Amino acid sequence: MSELRKDPIIGRWVIIAKERKSRPADFTTPVEIAKKSFCPFCPGNEDKTPAEIFAIRPDLSSPNTKGWAVRVVPNKFPALRIEGELNKKGIGMYDMMNGVGAHEVIIETPEHYTNTGELIDIKDYTPLKMNQILETYQTRYADLKKDQRFRYILIFKNSGKEAGSSLAHPHSQLVATPVVPKRVKEELIGAKWYYEYKERCVWCDIISQEIDSNKRIVAQNESFLALAPFASLFPYEISILPIRHSSDFEEITLKERELLAELMLEVFKKIAKGLNSPPYNYMLHTAPCRYHRPGFWQTIEKDYHWHIEIMPRLIKQGGFEWGTGFYINPTPPEEAAEFLKSLSV
Amino acid sequence: MSELRKDPIIGRWVIIAKERKSRPADFTTPVEIAKKSFCPFCPGNEDKTPAEIFAIRPDLSSPNTKGWAVRVVPNKFPALRIEGELNKKGIGMYDMMNGVGAHEVIIETPEHYTNTGELIDIKDYTPLKMNQILETYQTRYADLKKDQRFRYILIFKNSGKEAGSSLAHPHSQLVATPVVPKRVKEELIGAKWYYEYKERCVWCDIISQEIDSNKRIVAQNESFLALAPFASLFPYEISILPIRHSSDFEEITLKERELLAELMLEVFKKIAKGLNSPPYNYMLHTAPCRYHRPGFWQTIEKDYHWHIEIMPRLIKQGGFEWGTGFYINPTPPEEAAEFLKSLSV
Repeated sequence: MSELRKDPIIGRWVIIAKERKSRPADFTTPVEIAKKSFCPFCPGNEDKTPAEIFAIRPDLSSPNTKGWAVRVVPNKFPALRIEGELNKKGIGMYDMMNGVGAHEVIIETPEHYTNTGELIDIKDYTPLKMNQILETYQTRYADLKKDQRFRYILIFKNSGKEAGSSLAHPHSQLVATPVVPKRVKEELIGAKWYYEYKERCVWCDIISQEIDSNKRIVAQNESFLALAPFASLFPYEISILPIRHSSDFEEITLKERELLAELMLEVFKKIAKGLNSPPYNYMLHTAPCRYHRPGFWQTIEKDYHWHIEIMPRLIKQGGFEWGTGFYINPTPPEEAAEFLKSLSV
Repeated sequence: MSELRKDPIIGRWVIIAKERKSRPADFTTPVEIAKKSFCPFCPGNEDKTPAEIFAIRPDLSSPNTKGWAVRVVPNKFPALRIEGELNKKGIGMYDMMNGVGAHEVIIETPEHYTNTGELIDIKDYTPLKMNQILETYQTRYADLKKDQRFRYILIFKNSGKEAGSSLAHPHSQLVATPVVPKRVKEELIGAKWYYEYKERCVWCDIISQEIDSNKRIVAQNESFLALAPFASLFPYEISILPIRHSSDFEEITLKERELLAELMLEVFKKIAKGLNSPPYNYMLHTAPCRYHRPGFWQTIEKDYHWHIEIMPRLIKQGGFEWGTGFYINPTPPEEAAEFLKSLSV
């Protein structure tokens, strides 16, 4: 079983995933993303994945057969496993616990290629398809938030080998963890401080100032705003924020979900067109599991504001930034926004 | 001029470096590291770099001519510039200041290739060469710490294109900043808390427990310990710690510098042999500039312990980890240490 280990100096938890590749030769012979070989995520190969947890099946077909539009399965090589107890313990000055959690794969579409034979990606999706994916996210959040062992549920997508993906078929991932990830915790704490001082949500203030200045907006509709953040870490980084204050993604309405699907497609079409379909990551930041919100977290519904962060992977300065928290971004977000805004898609 | 901008939620500063590459096409046509083309860092091309700041010249040759063993020049495309005032200001809810600082390149050796025609790297250095590089680091730290505009001085190395390097000739870099980088600040705060509670330095406790358990030690000598950290973020990550408590790298003695040079060579030979000469980053974490240590920082000489972090770049899960602070490491540090320890170099 994997272990969660805590850094004794800065308190950051790390998953030591013993069951994944780990020998030196596994790293020095890189995994290529095969375009034409066998794909376990394609329809007809449902028996090559662990049994499905959830699927959208417009034709009412049976589980683990063809006919699905979106399909969720456990990760075959999970970083965390659903079975077992946490067994928190100390080893001398060090802290650790068992790697209990969930690690799911959201297979976004049965299609692997577009009509022209390219790998399919978000830019090729219909609004209905994008909405089905968001509906799946919402359903999985609502289900897993009931499990009292979990503190946080993170949904993210790695697209392209340079962004950490090892399978070409479009998929996103979900990780439910018994700890709140460090970066999310920093957001929670920062937002709380801001709220205590101003009695306003920091993201609501950002939305208001960004609409006012109109310098960093990439796209918008009546419910969502896509912008290049003022202190962007990466070139062409984009945040998508709901204009209505809400701490929890899963409380999105049907109408809002449609509007989010539309805006996400617009943004990804712009990224694909303007930046030559780069590898990218996106991640959904939402409030931690409700169960764990007594005390410090009691104001979270007021001070936290869910959002999506999109990071095209255009530069490779990772190691230094990883180690120091010190980022150099060569593209002013105003220029990034102006460029992406100007593209018609 | 570059700008420093502060994230309004989590308080992290980012350098928006307007003078570096920034247009979409600059990213989509990647810079290749040319092996055989013109090299501005090779001897004889001293006039192709900005004028040198410092050099070790065993033959007492003149500045900006051949004859140097190590040479320090300003970065030609600096993220931060030495001239000017900080001019801290607010734009609505956002905070920023001018990109004042220093960005230097430490050209480690006049040699570009080994005898067998390979690009030269640390593993090929003599102990004398490594010691000259460390002497240069020490000299530059001592000089720049006098400048009262700087809060932190960071020395690091990116080796290989995947690690963010754009020139093949061996070099490290120095960045002096008007803010303390986030990750370093977290270390300072974590170490302070630990010290207040235990009245012991957290790294001194780590050294003691690691020597005791002997599970994660990669190499050691009478003054330094190289180990795979208990909560390593990356496969085969290594920290080098001075066994004698010291907060400031630049206070290293001549004898210690020799021993550090030897241990660094041993570690990099092991990495090169066992992991097929991977791209890597290393960074030197030392105490912030002395001038800025009243109040909160007054105990820093007792609670901080300088060290070097070495990160071979073997996996590509960057974007997700960047955005969440949530790391999955597939190699238990005990296995990493056992493997590297067993290699004879």
